[in-house]
Amino acid sequence: MIKYSNQTRILTAIDCIIFGFDGSDYKLLLIQRGFAPEKEKWSLMGGFLQPSESLDEAADRVLKKLTGLENVYMEQMHTFSKPDRDPVERTIAVAYVALIDIQKYKKQISNDFHAHWFPMNELPNLIFDHEEMVNMAKSRLRYKAALHPILFELLPAKFTLPHLQAMYESLYETNIDKRNFTRKVLSTNMLVKEKEKDKTSSKKGAFYYSIDKTQYKDQFQTVLNFIPRNEMPNANE
Amino acid sequence: MIKYSNQTRILTAIDCIIFGFDGSDYKLLLIQRGFAPEKEKWSLMGGFLQPSESLDEAADRVLKKLTGLENVYMEQMHTFSKPDRDPVERTIAVAYVALIDIQKYKKQISNDFHAHWFPMNELPNLIFDHEEMVNMAKSRLRYKAALHPILFELLPAKFTLPHLQAMYESLYETNIDKRNFTRKVLSTNMLVKEKEKDKTSSKKGAFYYSIDKTQYKDQFQTVLNFIPRNEMPNANE
Repeated sequence: MIKYSNQTRILTAIDCIIFGFDGSDYKLLLIQRGFAPEKEKWSLMGGFLQPSESLDEAADRVLKKLTGLENVYMEQMHTFSKPDRDPVERTIAVAYVALIDIQKYKKQISNDFHAHWFPMNELPNLIFDHEEMVNMAKSRLRYKAALHPILFELLPAKFTLPHLQAMYESLYETNIDKRNFTRKVLSTNMLVKEKEKDKTSSKKGAFYYSIDKTQYKDQFQTVLNFIPRNEMPNANE
Repeated sequence: MIKYSNQTRILTAIDCIIFGFDGSDYKLLLIQRGFAPEKEKWSLMGGFLQPSESLDEAADRVLKKLTGLENVYMEQMHTFSKPDRDPVERTIAVAYVALIDIQKYKKQISNDFHAHWFPMNELPNLIFDHEEMVNMAKSRLRYKAALHPILFELLPAKFTLPHLQAMYESLYETNIDKRNFTRKVLSTNMLVKEKEKDKTSSKKGAFYYSIDKTQYKDQFQTVLNFIPRNEMPNANE
């Protein structure tokens, strides 16, 4: 069959936005770009879509090649398309996002492109429109974390309420009233109080909690409750 | 500056998924495709990204050209990229979605490409992966409608609770218990009971309600309430 005539073929890039949590802070993984323009400047992990791969496959390939990371669950976020976003030639960029436990993937990270975790409030200047991508991803992450238990996936098996509160405060860059937070989190019935206390941060100590796995997926989703729960689609469908 | 070498340039398409509500049913707007392959088959409104436009601009242009519709608020949803999704040549497709009031846009619709509203449960066969796109859009619409007052934008100034319930039941293809629905909707404090009744559907009649505009944007969003409301980003950021 002949091709579509009089149409413009352009480059499609993939950019991977990898947020990490190291137990107390959220960080962003960046590399030093390996080719011109902007060579050696800090960049998201990016590359071009190849003829025989889907965007999901390209994102996995690019992330692995540039950082060593494998089996990271990324979601497609948004396709960026300002005609002048890449000064070399027209390129649209499909951004992918993940939030991972930094400790868990520590051994995989390679140094080939100087992959480095930056604290969210100390990001360097980024190339092209990568700052815009990161800002959108941060907003989406905050939105999702308020509706789904994605932060709970980053908790150790036992944790304290001050630890959990700090996770939320850090992501939303805000202070949350301690009594309100405690009351509301416990009212979800997702947490199980353990017998031991963590005494590392105060003399009085703070009880450890663990997650009731049978409860938490059901309970966390606070969707408008006149929609029957079994009719509610998932955010990622 | 020279171009990126050894990279593949491909076509980028835009496909517009326009859901409409006609007062009682949800429908999908389709056209008969104007060129080969699959000429005259039912299709989403699609076209190719041009050299000097963004994807948002392309979506507006394509929708206007094929249906006459203007000033429709569309959101970018997802970019589809299976290597064989278009049999002519490799093309990735960026899908845009909107939900509109069919009556409001009735006069704009042109007949150049036989634009036609199909009831959601009577869709014809669609070309390429357009059915997959529509299914994802339907899931996202249900998800958003459970969290944000988007359906309320489609209500007339005065409406009855059976009318509102039917809107939700139709979107989720489910039956909702009437007493539960009434109790939960009224508990949001967003509705104002009017003095008149609608007596067209029953002898007893059903009271009309209107929306308390100062309340509804604030009240509707049922996000995890330990995040302070003013710190919550919007879904579309």
